[in-house]
Amino acid sequence: MSNQLNQILEVLDATIASRRASVQEGNVDALSYVAKLMKKGDDAILKKIGEEATEVVMAAKDSRTNVIEGRFNSEYQAKLVGEVADLWFHSLVLLGQFDLTSKDVLGELGRREGMSGIVEKESRVKE
Amino acid sequence: MSNQLNQILEVLDATIASRRASVQEGNVDALSYVAKLMKKGDDAILKKIGEEATEVVMAAKDSRTNVIEGRFNSEYQAKLVGEVADLWFHSLVLLGQFDLTSKDVLGELGRREGMSGIVEKESRVKE
Amino acid sequence: MSNQLNQILEVLDATIASRRASVQEGNVDALSYVAKLMKKGDDAILKKIGEEATEVVMAAKDSRTNVIEGRFNSEYQAKLVGEVADLWFHSLVLLGQFDLTSKDVLGELGRREGMSGIVEKESRVKE
Amino acid sequence: MSNQLNQILEVLDATIASRRASVQEGNVDALSYVAKLMKKGDDAILKKIGEEATEVVMAAKDSRTNVIEGRFNSEYQAKLVGEVADLWFHSLVLLGQFDLTSKDVLGELGRREGMSGIVEKESRVKE
Repeated sequence: MSNQLNQILEVLDATIASRRASVQEGNVDALSYVAKLMKKGDDAILKKIGEEATEVVMAAKDSRTNVIEGRFNSEYQAKLVGEVADLWFHSLVLLGQFDLTSKDVLGELGRREGMSGIVEKESRVKE
Repeated sequence: MSNQLNQILEVLDATIASRRASVQEGNVDALSYVAKLMKKGDDAILKKIGEEATEVVMAAKDSRTNVIEGRFNSEYQAKLVGEVADLWFHSLVLLGQFDLTSKDVLGELGRREGMSGIVEKESRVKE
Repeated sequence: MSNQLNQILEVLDATIASRRASVQEGNVDALSYVAKLMKKGDDAILKKIGEEATEVVMAAKDSRTNVIEGRFNSEYQAKLVGEVADLWFHSLVLLGQFDLTSKDVLGELGRREGMSGIVEKESRVKE
Repeated sequence: MSNQLNQILEVLDATIASRRASVQEGNVDALSYVAKLMKKGDDAILKKIGEEATEVVMAAKDSRTNVIEGRFNSEYQAKLVGEVADLWFHSLVLLGQFDLTSKDVLGELGRREGMSGIVEKESRVKE
């Protein structure tokens, strides 16, 4: 995976942090989708997490149903990818609302995968 | 974010793809957690998505309840990060089960964020 | 529990069946909430199930957080009751969409509770 | 619906209340499924709510996929009924954990359906 593709989570973290700052500063003019959601509060974001998880489940069931001769249908696969993207996106918004970022989650996944050496070195570089 | 931290999703994609291959080849000896889950089938994975989404919701509620003097409690924050990591991890398993990877999701997030130039260049490099 | 209170599920089953009939007959004028939801299709109803389940989880967390001196707060308890009512209501809509009613679910719960004698007698009366 | 079938929710409420009392009294011997779940605490019950809601979604998708010539398949319909029964059952356990019963939920559904006269008369009888 190229650096550029990898930077997407970082770009989104930054966008979300910026939206959060605007909400906290009371800049309610021309609110973006993310800012509006954050302004509504935790429950609005969490409701989206539950909703998007359900949509991932439905999209996966649909894609499996539409397998023909062992091949997935690209339309249903794209729908599934889109729903997982929605779920991850709202996870990022939730993380932002709690002063966290995708880096915390990737770090945790890394630790579990036994990449603790990498992650720790990472932290040291950061300090 | 360093390249190393970014590579975690790729490492996990590769691990999951390898587990899936072992399931498809019938190598049922010494099955890993991921291989067992994939062997059980789509519904077992989807049930985990629903379960982990619920745990994210509960962990977020707990972290908010335990804010003291405007500061989050690190223990509850770590729990929330862990639950989002669980949710993303099982999303990766689901993607693997459907011949997809985190790259598809990051690509979709990039397209939405208007990074289509980057993603397309990415695809060309890949070809 | 009085007969009257018990009849509520039956009344709702009947209302939902009537709405479903109007959708099937193409009476799209002045559609009720239930008729609109059924017309959108299974996924719209299932999305509500996922959403309402999440809201039950959040309402329960809130009610527990607001226990003072061992006593629940009536406002949060009412919210929890309302969310379970939403979840059950949308379950009834789902059942209706699949030609089922609350009676099927109560019968199943009865069978599990060892009331099979009652339920079977019930069925015989029905025939 | 006969009185007998209607009494199932009441029977379950009573069983759950009895289990809860045994948990509160510390009678941890020979714990039933419900008592064990209540002893684990709110989150264990809420996790089941999220899990069962997901299973309802999957069972409904499966039943729809298996419609043949406009007719539902009885096996998949029974699975759907079973999952809704699981969801309602765990809702009853949750209600019990919060000093509530199915009566509170039916009362709320009645109020919404405009049966407030009945429900209020009910309440007066109870006092």
